[in-house]
Amino acid sequence: MTGLLDEARVLAAIDGRARATVEEIRSAIRQPSVSQTGEGVEAMAAWTRSYLEALGADVRQVPGTRAPFVEGELITGSDRPTLLFYELYDVQPAKGQPGWTVDPFAAELVTDANGRERIVGRGAFNSKGPLVGALAAIRAFREAKVELPVNFRFLIEGEEEVGSPSLPGYIERNRNILGGCDAAFIPYFGTTAKGDTVIRLGFKGLTLLEFRVTGGAWGGPSRGDIHALHGAVIGSPSWELVRALSTLTDGEGRVTIDGLAAITPPPAPEDLELVEQAARHHDLEAYCTEIGAVKTRHATPRDALHATMFDVTLNIDALVAGKLEDGKEPATVIPKTARAFADLRLLPGMKADDVLSLIRAHLDRRGFQHVEVVCRSSYPASRASVKEPVVRALIAAMGAEAKHLRVFPIHAGAAPMYVFSETLGMPYVFGGVGHGAGSHGPNEYIMADDVAPFMRSVASFFYRFAETWNQARA
Amino acid sequence: MTGLLDEARVLAAIDGRARATVEEIRSAIRQPSVSQTGEGVEAMAAWTRSYLEALGADVRQVPGTRAPFVEGELITGSDRPTLLFYELYDVQPAKGQPGWTVDPFAAELVTDANGRERIVGRGAFNSKGPLVGALAAIRAFREAKVELPVNFRFLIEGEEEVGSPSLPGYIERNRNILGGCDAAFIPYFGTTAKGDTVIRLGFKGLTLLEFRVTGGAWGGPSRGDIHALHGAVIGSPSWELVRALSTLTDGEGRVTIDGLAAITPPPAPEDLELVEQAARHHDLEAYCTEIGAVKTRHATPRDALHATMFDVTLNIDALVAGKLEDGKEPATVIPKTARAFADLRLLPGMKADDVLSLIRAHLDRRGFQHVEVVCRSSYPASRASVKEPVVRALIAAMGAEAKHLRVFPIHAGAAPMYVFSETLGMPYVFGGVGHGAGSHGPNEYIMADDVAPFMRSVASFFYRFAETWNQARA
Repeated sequence: MTGLLDEARVLAAIDGRARATVEEIRSAIRQPSVSQTGEGVEAMAAWTRSYLEALGADVRQVPGTRAPFVEGELITGSDRPTLLFYELYDVQPAKGQPGWTVDPFAAELVTDANGRERIVGRGAFNSKGPLVGALAAIRAFREAKVELPVNFRFLIEGEEEVGSPSLPGYIERNRNILGGCDAAFIPYFGTTAKGDTVIRLGFKGLTLLEFRVTGGAWGGPSRGDIHALHGAVIGSPSWELVRALSTLTDGEGRVTIDGLAAITPPPAPEDLELVEQAARHHDLEAYCTEIGAVKTRHATPRDALHATMFDVTLNIDALVAGKLEDGKEPATVIPKTARAFADLRLLPGMKADDVLSLIRAHLDRRGFQHVEVVCRSSYPASRASVKEPVVRALIAAMGAEAKHLRVFPIHAGAAPMYVFSETLGMPYVFGGVGHGAGSHGPNEYIMADDVAPFMRSVASFFYRFAETWNQARA
Repeated sequence: MTGLLDEARVLAAIDGRARATVEEIRSAIRQPSVSQTGEGVEAMAAWTRSYLEALGADVRQVPGTRAPFVEGELITGSDRPTLLFYELYDVQPAKGQPGWTVDPFAAELVTDANGRERIVGRGAFNSKGPLVGALAAIRAFREAKVELPVNFRFLIEGEEEVGSPSLPGYIERNRNILGGCDAAFIPYFGTTAKGDTVIRLGFKGLTLLEFRVTGGAWGGPSRGDIHALHGAVIGSPSWELVRALSTLTDGEGRVTIDGLAAITPPPAPEDLELVEQAARHHDLEAYCTEIGAVKTRHATPRDALHATMFDVTLNIDALVAGKLEDGKEPATVIPKTARAFADLRLLPGMKADDVLSLIRAHLDRRGFQHVEVVCRSSYPASRASVKEPVVRALIAAMGAEAKHLRVFPIHAGAAPMYVFSETLGMPYVFGGVGHGAGSHGPNEYIMADDVAPFMRSVASFFYRFAETWNQARA
């Protein structure tokens, strides 16, 4: 009975420190940590380190390519499982991004149309809310003087938003130590605006591409921009880029790369069943409101979820040709270079190299040999099995705290979780109860009164995981 | 015989001040006058005004939208014709444009591979070389104490490189005074690198367009950028723009707007004959070297010239979606807005409104109702007849000074010369002997030792025009 009493004391301690945790999250948001520019990443690493030290963990900083890793351990006994706690402390840029109604780094509390308070700011949802909220749940154990049911190894990186360039190498170097963990845990605010808490069993892979056309032997301007009057006889890198890209998707946004369908794994029957179940509760209108859209491409929740989970996507992140300065007219030139930055999201089992070969062949077949395709970075998709003890533990813990629980076969978002499932060979889970939205967009937020349920769901997960682990050992 | 003696004295005076004129041109280049940013336009207007005053002209500045007009007159007798001298003192931007090997505003003298000196700098060729060179030719009359055979009205604008927004209104307001001129003259360095001096009898029209897609009722992000993970179900303004644009041209750069061919005037037999003649001397390789390209789309000079003169073109000046800062990776988002800036070059007799209607119908027919087409500015094409006295005078003067003279039916470049031919109903000519290149691009230049031949050709043109005018009156 000690376990249940302990758990009750921890949950009470969590409720008691909910407001303090909201303030800690706001403090983390107010420290910008934009890995694309480097702004504030060192300071945020120090902030994170100091928070971990307050938990009693042994903590170190390890240099990354652009921002340090914060690593550490909090080992309380050899008779309990060890979780590899992974999160990020960096954020996407927000300065100059249109649509913000508050300073992205002021972490303002904004009351929404339903009278509920939101913590609004860059990183609130992705991922300072979950990072600080989950660490605060661990802190509640200490404050309640309750023993932790699991050990922790912490791995908090500051380069996730630039594609985690140092993470694979870090994992390789620390394979022996990290491989001793029993499962990885990635805290997340997994509840939709409508109140459905969603657990995703995997992540798509992410390949960042650049399509680039520069004038040269094939035609076009070879020295510099050329006056537009020569457009009748001189090739245009911009037009070549536009025409080449236009062959890669159709009017429904489907990727039309020759041969892609043949190497795209069809959904497993159990995954289709998860989508059917989820579709019954998926509200497209609420989804659109949440992300900031009027409508989806698909008329039914089932079709929308099916596409989200099982479609390879190729998104244009940026188009760049010529020069447009604020409030000025661009020069009438044939720009020497035209570029499109794109992100390709692949499914578990697919290899980026295979798709890159298909893209090259697809473009060559249509006479676009002069359209370069550069792979800027890439990592594969990953999945955990629903049968894993750690997955069952998360489902049980979330189920207790959530109004409605849905299990999705995969997240449409990408994350380099293959480092756990593939490199380290351990299962991972990703979730938590609580609502947030606006990742990478303006007015990113989490609900302030969801911070306590989030922390409770995380603390419960630690207990459920220890239980399933002990059962498996018995 | 006084006329011939006078002309000889003027030509001698020109040769005597050739080096001084080179320095005057360099001084004009060193004064940036970027109408897109406003940088230096007032100072360059003052420079121009002061140069005109040194000719003995009455000069005034008249406000424009972004830069003042410099206007004035130099009337020496009622027994001679009056030329409307039109030029521009503004230039395209150059800062940050790749490919410059010298400071674009230092007006350096650079020795080329053949040991000839070039004046290199933004505006050297377009159009400070011809502006200052032609004014210096007038100055030579004064310095040689020779009476001018023609009167002048000067109209020098500072907004040509942003589409001459104030010119039509200016012409309308001054229609009575300007309409009293006998012809308009636009000085130009009309000699190719190979040594062919080209006279163009007209200009294409220029319509500046913006194609814009923003998320809204049709789909896509309606509030701000949306995380790219939603790409399977949320429409992409960038992809819509790319797919819509791709229907507007073909692999040969030909404009494929539905119905465009039917309203594109076919070349007249005499124009085809001019192209056939010009093609015999047109060196595609030299042309490519001059503008900075490896090859043209067309294999033969005839096809290249035919396309240059008789094809409507739609060039992409800039593609803009998402945000790419120097040296940084763009965010993985579905950008809310994607834009393409384009210039459409129409032929004499075509109306921009007709083509805009065709573009709208073309896009609507293909389901691109959500692709906005904004006309930023527009002016029509224009032409002068080869039978006009002023045209015959220019051909005679250039023929005397040029190694080889070619007459082209039209310039592929656009210029708002319709204000002379259509609004004021007077013929215009455009030309001069001397080589320059690199308009709007890096390392724009004129040949320093072509400044004297240019001035001589301009001075001779004044005499030939006075003669044809007197003959017509006789």
